[in-house]
Amino acid sequence: MSAAPDVSAVKTYLLGLQDGICAALEAEDGGGRFREDAWTRPEGGGGRTRILTDGAVFEKAGVAFSHVQGTKLPPSATAHRPELAGQPWEALGVSLVLHPRNPYVPTAHANVRFFISGSSAPSSPATPPVPRPPSPVTPTWWFGGGFDLTPYYGFEEDAAHWHRTARAAVAPFGVTLHARMKKACDEYFFLKHRGEPRGVGGLFYDDFNELGFDQSFALTRSVGDAFLPAYRPIVAERKATPHGDRERQFQLYRRGRYVEFNLVWDRGTLFGLQSGGRTESILMSLPPLVRWDYDWKPEPGSPEAKLYDVFLKPRDWLI
Amino acid sequence: MSAAPDVSAVKTYLLGLQDGICAALEAEDGGGRFREDAWTRPEGGGGRTRILTDGAVFEKAGVAFSHVQGTKLPPSATAHRPELAGQPWEALGVSLVLHPRNPYVPTAHANVRFFISGSSAPSSPATPPVPRPPSPVTPTWWFGGGFDLTPYYGFEEDAAHWHRTARAAVAPFGVTLHARMKKACDEYFFLKHRGEPRGVGGLFYDDFNELGFDQSFALTRSVGDAFLPAYRPIVAERKATPHGDRERQFQLYRRGRYVEFNLVWDRGTLFGLQSGGRTESILMSLPPLVRWDYDWKPEPGSPEAKLYDVFLKPRDWLI
Repeated sequence: MSAAPDVSAVKTYLLGLQDGICAALEAEDGGGRFREDAWTRPEGGGGRTRILTDGAVFEKAGVAFSHVQGTKLPPSATAHRPELAGQPWEALGVSLVLHPRNPYVPTAHANVRFFISGSSAPSSPATPPVPRPPSPVTPTWWFGGGFDLTPYYGFEEDAAHWHRTARAAVAPFGVTLHARMKKACDEYFFLKHRGEPRGVGGLFYDDFNELGFDQSFALTRSVGDAFLPAYRPIVAERKATPHGDRERQFQLYRRGRYVEFNLVWDRGTLFGLQSGGRTESILMSLPPLVRWDYDWKPEPGSPEAKLYDVFLKPRDWLI
Repeated sequence: MSAAPDVSAVKTYLLGLQDGICAALEAEDGGGRFREDAWTRPEGGGGRTRILTDGAVFEKAGVAFSHVQGTKLPPSATAHRPELAGQPWEALGVSLVLHPRNPYVPTAHANVRFFISGSSAPSSPATPPVPRPPSPVTPTWWFGGGFDLTPYYGFEEDAAHWHRTARAAVAPFGVTLHARMKKACDEYFFLKHRGEPRGVGGLFYDDFNELGFDQSFALTRSVGDAFLPAYRPIVAERKATPHGDRERQFQLYRRGRYVEFNLVWDRGTLFGLQSGGRTESILMSLPPLVRWDYDWKPEPGSPEAKLYDVFLKPRDWLI
């Protein structure tokens, strides 16, 4: 059922996805432009990090592609698959976090990624040949990805549109997939120290190879391609909503939760920071301006309380 | 050489330390007042968290006392002392973080704490009697503490005064202690993902019982009592320094490093958040307003570059 993994096809798709998303975001912003930092890492591979700051719509938008390789997978990365320890590996992905200026526009995150390890993990032509280990093993690979939405002032119809688009993206690949990936998203983007979801969720999957390479890759393309149709209409609808200092201060306060999640709980962020990843690319996800207020609580019945009461409760947005 | 541990004496000292520091900070601020939140935790114990916000000098100041107890020490807390697993325990401490408004006044952190576990760990009169485990073990206890300084625009004479006061506080207890605790501070308050110290350091010690209870407690009192003489003259000297938006923006940017350290590396913060501690008391350490700028670097030769070039390098400030 499964064709051999085609790393080069994944890479081509991801580079195009980054290009397409950046172009659309610039068009939606109408003013800001992405600047690009290309970087390499001594152990192999590199990336291109694109950041738009101080746009008309996006206060900070980061859309990063990376493709990193190693000759020996560390044991810590393979606790549940010890046969992979010491094998060559590659990881590719596109990751984005968008922090809009207008508090009525939600923050959005999306990520699609591919990992492959084992003796037939091809080395990139741009890097030195990977030494073959003495005992080659069958390559192991998986896809991961998803997207999630973090409103400040929520709208039921926006949440429904977001989840409807997510469901449509994965529905062709299996009838149970959407429910599973929606639940995984709710569980992953959860601030345990607050007992609070990060936002209204979306899709999350990892270690995904159950459909074979071709279909797992097609699913991942479908998810990556669904991000713009899921998010852009919400931005277009809300970006001109009038607002004042009250909404701005609430937005800054709620951005603190984004920082807390990413620095305390997000596996990718922590693994990256603790394993010598490129700090500035990893932390491009952090909001441009953030406030913390000791023990702040919204006034009951206020628009700020509605975020907690209506949107920060896991629920089925499609019924 | 060691008297029996006297938890009640430690508690009396810590409550007085919190009172004295809050009174001095209010006097130095000249406007702001601390408000107090008393809290209890279901598993035993509680605390009093004091926060001053929007003062004339301190944008946010948190000074917290806590005294928490448990009937069974979790195995994760006793990996290197398995005989303590399942024993009753108590932990007491005062912890403070001060975020001044003026970027020429450094941020300061201090903490003193005491931990005791084992069958003779006394239970507080305010809580139900602690059930005795079947196999009582000799109580184990230790002190920990220290203080460290995080300037935005540094002054050599301030750093020297800070370290001189730190040295004087511990010198009576052993000739090698200051060097050891200064080095431990440099090593602990280090952002590995940035390759950058948090500030100019100070003192740090943990698991300290080598002088017996009486002298270890006396050392801890000396450290706690040294905080105000170390910090207050610096605040008094710098709090009226004229500054503009450039200095403010740099302060907000550098505060991001404080957040990164506390959420990614600080053991106390992470243990507290992951083990069900009181989130608002733990995160009172976070700055009131913070910015992140992608890949920002100071202009060479600028006052901002001086922070990195002169102050964020571990060195001996007393020669």
